Amino acid sequence: MLTRIDHIGIACHDLDTTVEFYRSTYGFEVFHTEVNEEQGVREAMLRINGTSDGGSSYIQLLQPVRKDSTVATWLAKNGEGVHHIAFGTADVDGDAQSIRSKGVRVLYDTPKTGSMGSRITFLHPKDCHGVLTELVTSATEH
Amino acid sequence: MLTRIDHIGIACHDLDTTVEFYRSTYGFEVFHTEVNEEQGVREAMLRINGTSDGGSSYIQLLQPVRKDSTVATWLAKNGEGVHHIAFGTADVDGDAQSIRSKGVRVLYDTPKTGSMGSRITFLHPKDCHGVLTELVTSATEH
Repeated sequence: MLTRIDHIGIACHDLDTTVEFYRSTYGFEVFHTEVNEEQGVREAMLRINGTSDGGSSYIQLLQPVRKDSTVATWLAKNGEGVHHIAFGTADVDGDAQSIRSKGVRVLYDTPKTGSMGSRITFLHPKDCHGVLTELVTSATEH
Repeated sequence: MLTRIDHIGIACHDLDTTVEFYRSTYGFEVFHTEVNEEQGVREAMLRINGTSDGGSSYIQLLQPVRKDSTVATWLAKNGEGVHHIAFGTADVDGDAQSIRSKGVRVLYDTPKTGSMGSRITFLHPKDCHGVLTELVTSATEH
């Protein structure tokens, strides 16, 4: 069961510049940074608020670290902007299975590692009215 | 001060079909619908979670109701997908003024009426790393 907007993933050309824009313009501070080698991104999580399921909502800023990453390809086509949205769930495996059974393409056979030790999968944007949609179970939920 | 992700605005060709996708795929129910004549959209708000500032986070589905609306123009160029993101604040006037003073273009001189009696304004996406960004004070906050 999806119980929160976990994050909005925003692709950018330069992570440091974009982090500074969000800090100086809105006052949002960096909560966490990491490099996800598998996804080919360097990322910063800005925590915006707590959520009623005990989790949080974040802005996730993403800079590609190699030219063949999916985010690099997306940026080259679209320019900077919202890359994906993510819903939080305590059971990414069960929800992914349930959603797949409804005919929506789930991009991974089993969830992969996302930000801060979370487990994540993605739904095909063409099956979701144009929205690349992530499902995420945070490290504290699994 | 921006204290929550208020909503993610998603543009679609057919509101009823898209509402049904979000209901049948994720279990999200319609919390509110309205037509905003000024913005030229018919919209549905799906409430996803409560937020730590006492507000809520929503998915906002938007269908243009006339061909010259900004959402219609956007859809014709981009196809269905994430149109904007919105941060919630108790003081949209003060925050808009503060952000304008930092050199970010604010699209309205004074906030206009948004979903459910809220007061809203928008920041120019070219000043926000490609993200059309809304600021919103809900009806219960103003």
